[in-house]
Amino acid sequence: MDWKTQITAADARIAPYIQRTPVMQAQGFGLDYPIEMKLEHMQYTGSFKARGAFNTLLSSDVPAAGVVAASGGNHGAAAAFAASTLGHHAKIFVPETAGPSKIALIERLGADLTVVQGVYANALSQAQAYERETGAMQIHAYDAPATVAGQGTCMAEWEAQGIEADTVLIAVGGGGLIAGALAWLQGARKIVAVEPVLAPTLTRALVDGPETVVDVSGIAANALGASKIGQICYDLAVGQGIDTVTVSDESIATAQLALWQERRILVEPAGATALAALMSGAYCPAAGERVAVLVCGANIAPDPLA
Amino acid sequence: MDWKTQITAADARIAPYIQRTPVMQAQGFGLDYPIEMKLEHMQYTGSFKARGAFNTLLSSDVPAAGVVAASGGNHGAAAAFAASTLGHHAKIFVPETAGPSKIALIERLGADLTVVQGVYANALSQAQAYERETGAMQIHAYDAPATVAGQGTCMAEWEAQGIEADTVLIAVGGGGLIAGALAWLQGARKIVAVEPVLAPTLTRALVDGPETVVDVSGIAANALGASKIGQICYDLAVGQGIDTVTVSDESIATAQLALWQERRILVEPAGATALAALMSGAYCPAAGERVAVLVCGANIAPDPLA
Repeated sequence: MDWKTQITAADARIAPYIQRTPVMQAQGFGLDYPIEMKLEHMQYTGSFKARGAFNTLLSSDVPAAGVVAASGGNHGAAAAFAASTLGHHAKIFVPETAGPSKIALIERLGADLTVVQGVYANALSQAQAYERETGAMQIHAYDAPATVAGQGTCMAEWEAQGIEADTVLIAVGGGGLIAGALAWLQGARKIVAVEPVLAPTLTRALVDGPETVVDVSGIAANALGASKIGQICYDLAVGQGIDTVTVSDESIATAQLALWQERRILVEPAGATALAALMSGAYCPAAGERVAVLVCGANIAPDPLA
Repeated sequence: MDWKTQITAADARIAPYIQRTPVMQAQGFGLDYPIEMKLEHMQYTGSFKARGAFNTLLSSDVPAAGVVAASGGNHGAAAAFAASTLGHHAKIFVPETAGPSKIALIERLGADLTVVQGVYANALSQAQAYERETGAMQIHAYDAPATVAGQGTCMAEWEAQGIEADTVLIAVGGGGLIAGALAWLQGARKIVAVEPVLAPTLTRALVDGPETVVDVSGIAANALGASKIGQICYDLAVGQGIDTVTVSDESIATAQLALWQERRILVEPAGATALAALMSGAYCPAAGERVAVLVCGANIAPDPLA
């Protein structure tokens, strides 16, 4: 796969439909060094997922039956938004763990939504059944080339905006966002994968193999709670080498509170997970190492203005 | 007053203590044109006020009795933060209308806080009495040269970040922020003052004179509810000419909701007031006119993470 070419093409394809998100050099958070941040939680539908969804739809022949997606919430919102923008029907399955904010968001976007009892895997099996029955096109949340190429535009955009960091910290669920970053950077910067202790999917897969199924729970589970890492992410991580660290739910909550109290950035727990690795000391930069944090999602529950 | 020199000096003086806030080109909000935004609500203590507070303290001989400020909330938080950072005692008077979020913020910053019955004018008279009794230095919220020069660094910074807009919309309370922008720009860009219908302080002063006292109320009153415009602001507005528009509380609430739902920017009503002028049509750009919105404050109540 020529990822640089794929991501460059995705970038041109989705540019009219996505928000170029701001970057900043931020102080604070109890750190004695500044960090670069990209505020990707300001993307359409409140997470980076809109990039992959638009790239998938714009590079496919979408059938008359439209699209179907299974999601912890953020991918479903992105798929619903992209489908609506481009004039396609969207059927979204989410587990009840998606929570009220994400469910309300998907409803507001006009999608045909089914909330499924149980966990993400239950939503995925219903989405697969719907795909077979209707001929709708499945948009995978993280493990398809068009999805990964779309998410890769986030790092491509950040480089165009002048990121200087040696090391970029990225939260990992199924691995679509970090796979896109690895695919774009090709080793040009160090990437650190940050996972909740209660959802260490990539960390475990790198030890026990790509088919490892992990029990997931905790405050970030509806965004970072994929129980099996994407194969594309796994292959890129193994091929390029990657550091992984895990952070406790308490550390994530502390980082979430600091982002709000210090910089008025209100995010969901997943959006604070990468920063938590610095604040907790799970990742300690070397002297002179410049670090950056990708802020990836803001669909917090309860919704503060609901 | 050589404002360009004053603001340039303020910028150098406060740079180590303030956050350079991000800028973006934003889509959405029901507008058929993009707008530039500066996310100044990410400043320390959640509003631009930290700039003026630091500039005042860093350009003064602060007495042993420390500093005193009266505030609807945001200025008090900024004064408390600047004083604490620089090692001075801070006594802050706020009216009860400051609300629980701003009161909790000032307490968290370690200030000696008194919550006064009634409105801002009551807090100001108590602060003036405290100044007489203790010799503490008063930091005016908006009508002192050091305050205005500090707030002017916000527009200076935005120009250094490459703002392209012909026209900049800025919310007005006592007028410190817009005075700083007028003082810096000296007519280089058009500035539009945006006020709540229920707090039209500058609008009324430009008709009836600078001593006009206005009844203020509404959802943005604890930030934009100065009953009398600052003399510095008035003189700059009259000298340079300025457009003013007013927006309803309903329009402000609509813009506040749109900032959150579309861009995950959570602000207090004052922070959404400038955008409300565009969304409501109170200000309609001409064909080809490029517009920018200064997002100025985010100390929303209730605090979503309290």
